[in-house]
Amino acid sequence: MVKRIEKIVVVGSGNIAYHVVRAFRQQGRLVIQLHARKSDRSRQISDQFRVPVITAADKLSKDADLYLLAVKDEAIREVALSLGLRNQLLVHTSGATPLDALSHASSRLGVFYPLQSLTFGKEKDLYGIPICIEASQAGDLDLLKELADAVSGNVWAIDSEKRKHLHLAAVFAANFTHRMYAIASQLLEDQGIPFEILAPLINETTTKAVYRDPRKDQTGPAVRGDMKIIRQHMEMLKDKPAYREIYRLVSESIMNNQIDPDEEL
Amino acid sequence: MVKRIEKIVVVGSGNIAYHVVRAFRQQGRLVIQLHARKSDRSRQISDQFRVPVITAADKLSKDADLYLLAVKDEAIREVALSLGLRNQLLVHTSGATPLDALSHASSRLGVFYPLQSLTFGKEKDLYGIPICIEASQAGDLDLLKELADAVSGNVWAIDSEKRKHLHLAAVFAANFTHRMYAIASQLLEDQGIPFEILAPLINETTTKAVYRDPRKDQTGPAVRGDMKIIRQHMEMLKDKPAYREIYRLVSESIMNNQIDPDEEL
Repeated sequence: MVKRIEKIVVVGSGNIAYHVVRAFRQQGRLVIQLHARKSDRSRQISDQFRVPVITAADKLSKDADLYLLAVKDEAIREVALSLGLRNQLLVHTSGATPLDALSHASSRLGVFYPLQSLTFGKEKDLYGIPICIEASQAGDLDLLKELADAVSGNVWAIDSEKRKHLHLAAVFAANFTHRMYAIASQLLEDQGIPFEILAPLINETTTKAVYRDPRKDQTGPAVRGDMKIIRQHMEMLKDKPAYREIYRLVSESIMNNQIDPDEEL
Repeated sequence: MVKRIEKIVVVGSGNIAYHVVRAFRQQGRLVIQLHARKSDRSRQISDQFRVPVITAADKLSKDADLYLLAVKDEAIREVALSLGLRNQLLVHTSGATPLDALSHASSRLGVFYPLQSLTFGKEKDLYGIPICIEASQAGDLDLLKELADAVSGNVWAIDSEKRKHLHLAAVFAANFTHRMYAIASQLLEDQGIPFEILAPLINETTTKAVYRDPRKDQTGPAVRGDMKIIRQHMEMLKDKPAYREIYRLVSESIMNNQIDPDEEL
């Protein structure tokens, strides 16, 4: 077994592939092959980071220290098997997929999951981004830890069951908050008010949640039990039944979970 | 009419009272009276900013340039009338309350609404905080604009109808996102994972929403139409019906409003 991961094969050409190839190269690791379909994206990764692309599994180098799958969740099992590995370290990068989705594809399995929303081609440093790692063998966990540490410095050893819940929590904290912003933006656009008016409030809310317990500091009509305002808001949303139903449910959820209604909006 | 507002009476002793008194004093305006009940809070504002407190309306100075109501929404009408004003400039500080809640309490009415979640006693500068102003007379709008400009530099003239919608949008963008964070925090606590693991993802999501169109960049299983993950998440939430219902509704809302599913979580 190697002391640290130097030679890496990355499979895929999406957002995660772009960013891990970039990060590995920055750390002086050798991305010996990018295994991907011919596409603008695989060409861009190849050109930008000077990595040779292979399109067929039979061209795959068999002596890399790490094979990293950066493909869509539903393709993980099939692509993993297609590589024809036996005892090389094979990891996927998915939050929602268990480690054992890779079983039968190699004897040494792992996960290297960057908990961030990544944009292809955007020059974003992975430094500080949580990397959640898991491995079927203790020595491989050490190897992945060393690599994740070099890339981000923010490493979490989290097993498949916990990672599944982490992914669900991330859906609430990121995808669903994003949807709340989108709804707010739509409501403002209907009034001709630019969304930027909410920026200081959004920044303050996020900063408080991140640096304090987000179950404290809830503000707004629901936590105050201000039924007059809640009814007024529901009335204002009467032509937007989907928003109205979200308003009702989230307000109820707030009302049923009061902790510290200390502030007002 | 005065050229600019110098002498101010603030009514109330809550979060907004604390912050506007502080901001007015910082700008060298004269807060000649704080009209409030005897309480620790009114005493703290009085001591900290050297403002005399009066508890009875008959002690109210009648020659201030501005009377600013910083009381709970439901108390605005009654407190406004109790002041016994006639043609002095009287404003409230509420997002959800129309200007005409003050009618009959004076002939010169206005609104001075700071769009921020404020904490009593926390030394936070109002600079940059949006102040939404409205007035029943054009000259008074100019006066309020000058004052809001001095205090925050981020001034929006917004009428009562638009302000009501702004307040509703703020509930989605701040109160409801806060609830999403709280739910995420609860889900993580059940797994023994600290909430801080989500901080980079939350910061990235918020930054993107604030500096770009929040109706783009939606990420996650719903925007990808990944029913396998959605079903898995729903199953994980089967013992938490309130969270489960929020998950279902917000995911549906995302699925029905796809714009640019360009990224993955």
